[in-house]
Amino acid sequence: MQKNQEPVYYGDYLQLDKLLAAQAPHSSRYGETAHDETLFIIVHQVYELWFKQVLHELGSVMDTFSEQEVKDQQLTTVVHRLRRIITIQELMNDQIGVMETMTPQEFLTFRDYLIPASGFQSIQFKRLEISLGLKRDYRIDFDKQSFYQRLEEQDRHYLEKLENRPSLFELVESWLERMPLLEFGDFKFWELYNSAATAMLAEDEQTVQSNQTLNEKQRETELEGIEQTKGVFNALLDDKEYKKLQQKDELRLSQRAMLSSLFICQYQEEPLFNLPYQLITCLTEIDEKLTIWRYRHAMMVQRMLGSKIGTGGSSGHEYLKRTTESNRIFKDFFNMSTFLLPKKALPDLPQEVRESLGFHLSRV
Amino acid sequence: MQKNQEPVYYGDYLQLDKLLAAQAPHSSRYGETAHDETLFIIVHQVYELWFKQVLHELGSVMDTFSEQEVKDQQLTTVVHRLRRIITIQELMNDQIGVMETMTPQEFLTFRDYLIPASGFQSIQFKRLEISLGLKRDYRIDFDKQSFYQRLEEQDRHYLEKLENRPSLFELVESWLERMPLLEFGDFKFWELYNSAATAMLAEDEQTVQSNQTLNEKQRETELEGIEQTKGVFNALLDDKEYKKLQQKDELRLSQRAMLSSLFICQYQEEPLFNLPYQLITCLTEIDEKLTIWRYRHAMMVQRMLGSKIGTGGSSGHEYLKRTTESNRIFKDFFNMSTFLLPKKALPDLPQEVRESLGFHLSRV
Amino acid sequence: MQKNQEPVYYGDYLQLDKLLAAQAPHSSRYGETAHDETLFIIVHQVYELWFKQVLHELGSVMDTFSEQEVKDQQLTTVVHRLRRIITIQELMNDQIGVMETMTPQEFLTFRDYLIPASGFQSIQFKRLEISLGLKRDYRIDFDKQSFYQRLEEQDRHYLEKLENRPSLFELVESWLERMPLLEFGDFKFWELYNSAATAMLAEDEQTVQSNQTLNEKQRETELEGIEQTKGVFNALLDDKEYKKLQQKDELRLSQRAMLSSLFICQYQEEPLFNLPYQLITCLTEIDEKLTIWRYRHAMMVQRMLGSKIGTGGSSGHEYLKRTTESNRIFKDFFNMSTFLLPKKALPDLPQEVRESLGFHLSRV
Amino acid sequence: MQKNQEPVYYGDYLQLDKLLAAQAPHSSRYGETAHDETLFIIVHQVYELWFKQVLHELGSVMDTFSEQEVKDQQLTTVVHRLRRIITIQELMNDQIGVMETMTPQEFLTFRDYLIPASGFQSIQFKRLEISLGLKRDYRIDFDKQSFYQRLEEQDRHYLEKLENRPSLFELVESWLERMPLLEFGDFKFWELYNSAATAMLAEDEQTVQSNQTLNEKQRETELEGIEQTKGVFNALLDDKEYKKLQQKDELRLSQRAMLSSLFICQYQEEPLFNLPYQLITCLTEIDEKLTIWRYRHAMMVQRMLGSKIGTGGSSGHEYLKRTTESNRIFKDFFNMSTFLLPKKALPDLPQEVRESLGFHLSRV
Repeated sequence: MQKNQEPVYYGDYLQLDKLLAAQAPHSSRYGETAHDETLFIIVHQVYELWFKQVLHELGSVMDTFSEQEVKDQQLTTVVHRLRRIITIQELMNDQIGVMETMTPQEFLTFRDYLIPASGFQSIQFKRLEISLGLKRDYRIDFDKQSFYQRLEEQDRHYLEKLENRPSLFELVESWLERMPLLEFGDFKFWELYNSAATAMLAEDEQTVQSNQTLNEKQRETELEGIEQTKGVFNALLDDKEYKKLQQKDELRLSQRAMLSSLFICQYQEEPLFNLPYQLITCLTEIDEKLTIWRYRHAMMVQRMLGSKIGTGGSSGHEYLKRTTESNRIFKDFFNMSTFLLPKKALPDLPQEVRESLGFHLSRV
Repeated sequence: MQKNQEPVYYGDYLQLDKLLAAQAPHSSRYGETAHDETLFIIVHQVYELWFKQVLHELGSVMDTFSEQEVKDQQLTTVVHRLRRIITIQELMNDQIGVMETMTPQEFLTFRDYLIPASGFQSIQFKRLEISLGLKRDYRIDFDKQSFYQRLEEQDRHYLEKLENRPSLFELVESWLERMPLLEFGDFKFWELYNSAATAMLAEDEQTVQSNQTLNEKQRETELEGIEQTKGVFNALLDDKEYKKLQQKDELRLSQRAMLSSLFICQYQEEPLFNLPYQLITCLTEIDEKLTIWRYRHAMMVQRMLGSKIGTGGSSGHEYLKRTTESNRIFKDFFNMSTFLLPKKALPDLPQEVRESLGFHLSRV
Repeated sequence: MQKNQEPVYYGDYLQLDKLLAAQAPHSSRYGETAHDETLFIIVHQVYELWFKQVLHELGSVMDTFSEQEVKDQQLTTVVHRLRRIITIQELMNDQIGVMETMTPQEFLTFRDYLIPASGFQSIQFKRLEISLGLKRDYRIDFDKQSFYQRLEEQDRHYLEKLENRPSLFELVESWLERMPLLEFGDFKFWELYNSAATAMLAEDEQTVQSNQTLNEKQRETELEGIEQTKGVFNALLDDKEYKKLQQKDELRLSQRAMLSSLFICQYQEEPLFNLPYQLITCLTEIDEKLTIWRYRHAMMVQRMLGSKIGTGGSSGHEYLKRTTESNRIFKDFFNMSTFLLPKKALPDLPQEVRESLGFHLSRV
Repeated sequence: MQKNQEPVYYGDYLQLDKLLAAQAPHSSRYGETAHDETLFIIVHQVYELWFKQVLHELGSVMDTFSEQEVKDQQLTTVVHRLRRIITIQELMNDQIGVMETMTPQEFLTFRDYLIPASGFQSIQFKRLEISLGLKRDYRIDFDKQSFYQRLEEQDRHYLEKLENRPSLFELVESWLERMPLLEFGDFKFWELYNSAATAMLAEDEQTVQSNQTLNEKQRETELEGIEQTKGVFNALLDDKEYKKLQQKDELRLSQRAMLSSLFICQYQEEPLFNLPYQLITCLTEIDEKLTIWRYRHAMMVQRMLGSKIGTGGSSGHEYLKRTTESNRIFKDFFNMSTFLLPKKALPDLPQEVRESLGFHLSRV
């Protein structure tokens, strides 16, 4: 308790007078109030409150990664807050089921009054996308145009400024690049990885060659598969090949950040890698949950409107579905398993590396 | 589209300027803003928005049952809206998981600044309880006192007035009593039920008597069980016994409403009973979900505070847990299966009764 | 209790000796047992148990619709069982989260031992798809080939026979066609619909013409939208246009079944339409949940394998994602809102039609 | 791929022939098969499969804690597997909703055939309880008796043997006691905690004394609250007081284990404490989810049976509800916040202690 602290009343603290007076159905303006417009308003308002919360957490995480040094203790907090975002996302995904309790016919009683408002105008949602790392270039045309044709000028300017600031993607990428882990004296992670991969594939090749249960065609297919895998592993370690993949937008992270991530994923049980591994997992899940939200949202729009055009003029669900692929940010983490080697193909780390990745104090 | 309808902008429509400015952490008043107070505020605000929506649906359902006659078409709408409430309740129950992403230690950084605010002061939540049918008398002492000691005067008056208006429980009870279904000419449901119950128990008794696999003790136990069941069935049909059960608060519905409910439940596949059966099921589930919410909420409070005293002075979770039982409304529906007879013990309804419960047009 | 009924023991009843002995990790055959293979087996076994349950419900629903006449009481049961399927689907969708607790690296410890087993070989899942109405022709090539290349002969034969039996889609379509609802004496639903649609569009046109807030370009866009809607409504009522849409696979239901569905959806609050409307809604949701399952499953596979090739030789997630669109069955119900008119554009039904759609007994 | 590895077929791998043939409704023995008995069987079988999985994870965690030394890398795995248990528990809790799609009347069609089978006879569930740390003494009488009266002899013996082996509770308690963290040279955690607690309470007292907004009665209440808190903190540090609390079963963990837990919780952002803190959180959540399952299960039983007696002779739901409290294991962790001090009341740890809790390598 603080000196002379005033007693607090629940309703005042939460500003319920404002909050609960902010639902004004437009149908009332043109005749009988549509019963279900309240649901429509409240569902969207709840989304906006959750967006605010998610941006609050995201902002604090970005502040941390903007610093030159991220302390171990801070990383605990970062992971904790990203987990909270994921929990909120799960709720937001299920919330689509609440909107779906509105039948298409109920929606028809008021949708015309909302023209041309559209969810594409949610500034907080666009802010979320941009903060995570969605670039204008990744957006499909329809979504790009929404900046120019649907946003009020000050909103557009605000978002355009935001697009020029480093995103979480870039901050994490740069933090991964800075990690002094890929080399310790003689030890170089990529050498270890390269020789482990080569050995494994050689063994696989031999097994296929000597397997009596395969017919000629199957053997060929298997060998082709191995060749293909060689190519994939090679691309990761070869500068030029890596650049090509980046140009085709098949990879976005820099090569060095990618190698750091791979090292972390392959040896995630080492104490020093534990939190970074959780960080990578969290970012993957945030992307995954967001994608599921987009997909479910697109389905809901289709169910509500059929092939009708949305209140904002879009033929809605087709565009929305396309954004599930185009608007993904951390897809490199999502595809990380392309490059993963099985545990048994990996050597133990050299003793001094292992120690470097451990605690001062060893546990009992 | 309406004549000269003004174009609508997403953020204006949802009044986001108000909504997103309504989060003012109190920790800021006494020093550094606590990062997690925003979560605390937003979680509670989202709850209040959902309460508003639930009350919106509940109000419309109560309006319908306040009319002398409830049309069949209206009953469709009633069930639809009650289902929506249930869907929202599921979300509200899961939302406790979001609050639980706040560690007890994070809560400690600002909880003292909120004294003596308390969730007991949520007027919308108390309105919900009262509208459903929670009487002052059912409340445990601690919860009763919250009316006098924690509410501002105008809030208390508002709720006291509400307590004198008919609740959903009473409206539905009276609608069930009015249903002209229990008697059709010679047919009386309670006679059918009574003879079916008597016959079933007589057969059970005979089976037990002749079952060779039972020893004497088991046989006695089984026979006692049958006697007990006789008593239960009898209480339902005997005015005086029924009153006794009401006085012990083991039953709340009037005898006639209870018999109507039982008829509906036993023959729920008849077309005319379909929507009433869904109504009964919905009310049961609303009660069940609310109870689960109370229970999870009590657990969360315990985890957050341990045996510490809540910001409002309550030692929280113990009281909260006790309300899970005391504050249930439709427990008669919940216990309905006490009186249910198995399908095979029931006779088919007489032809003319069956027809009366059907459609004009028979389906093909 | 039955005469001389034997006492039942929990573990015997559930055949736990068989059930809990049916998990044999293949990794044990080639060295150290992989801890996580048990999860992989059990998750799939649980899916297969749920599939069995879903097929059990689906089978009983199909039996009902195979009869010449579907009684009103049976329809209650049909809807109840479809709802159960939906509840199980929700659980199955969330179950993907359990599989995702296995990291890609954990999967790598045993996935090679399972070659070439694949989820494409789940006979129960294919049975589910076929029973709902998935035709060989709708499947993408990759999925089609799985019949010939991956199934054992007796499984393939079993499914091919099943493909020749009427599916739920066809049974429901034929039931909708048989409904004697579209005409009552002078009343013809399509005439009512046609004139209501025409009147609404004429009014819309006039509003757009006279709206002063629109500039020339906006007016043109709006008018084009109205023309397009006219075309859509027309296609529904014109035999030739309807056939064209069917040939393009934009519609699958027969014209008569489609009109019945539309009538039901537009006047769903009429008692006789209540259960049919719920039936349509349930089938829509089953399709929606299945689609979401496919989508989440595809994401999970991508996360687990990256762009690696699956144990069955497929490059997995791309194919899986494509099936989310191709394998939908009841998409006509999903798109129904394309044709829906707002309530206020619809006239009240003539008194005698309304009565025909009501109960013998009117409710009070 | 392994040398001469045999190709694997999905159905064989999962032993679907056994699995899908293990559903034999008992209703078939006495007349017409009850449609819904299949659901009853499958729901229980799925639970048993999940129990097997949970026990598989739990067993591996207990093996780890049975070793004299728990390596840091192992702790990562422990937390990962406990999280998997929690994810499965969430699914199991939602699965009650599937059982609830069976109406009480549907259950009545076959329940008599199952007498006296009962969920109390699930050996895996009892094994789970015992492995976590549920002692015979904690069980309510009804549950205790189930061992002697309802279990077959070999099952009872198996469980009784298990009761004599160290449980997870005891293994974790002993691991916490062994942690060499409470003292580092001059630093003693309990001294730090004691002086911080004393200082905080003294300040609180002064604030209350000087707060002008409080009336005499409020001041008294506040001061009493502070006295009470003093007692609570004291009990933790005083051997005798601590023993008293243990005798009243208000605390179960040893004093030393409790202090270690508290140290971890208060300074959980320190790298070395990160995994132990996650461990404590996981155990708390496992307990919480299990309690919620018990509660929802009790509600479901009540809804299904009313106040009727269960198939096993129990009047079910009352007993079940009582086990939600009696059968909790890690309630000390659950109540940990009773003893937590706010961050600002805690001093920074001495530099050398902090270093000892950090990594060899500091992160950038």
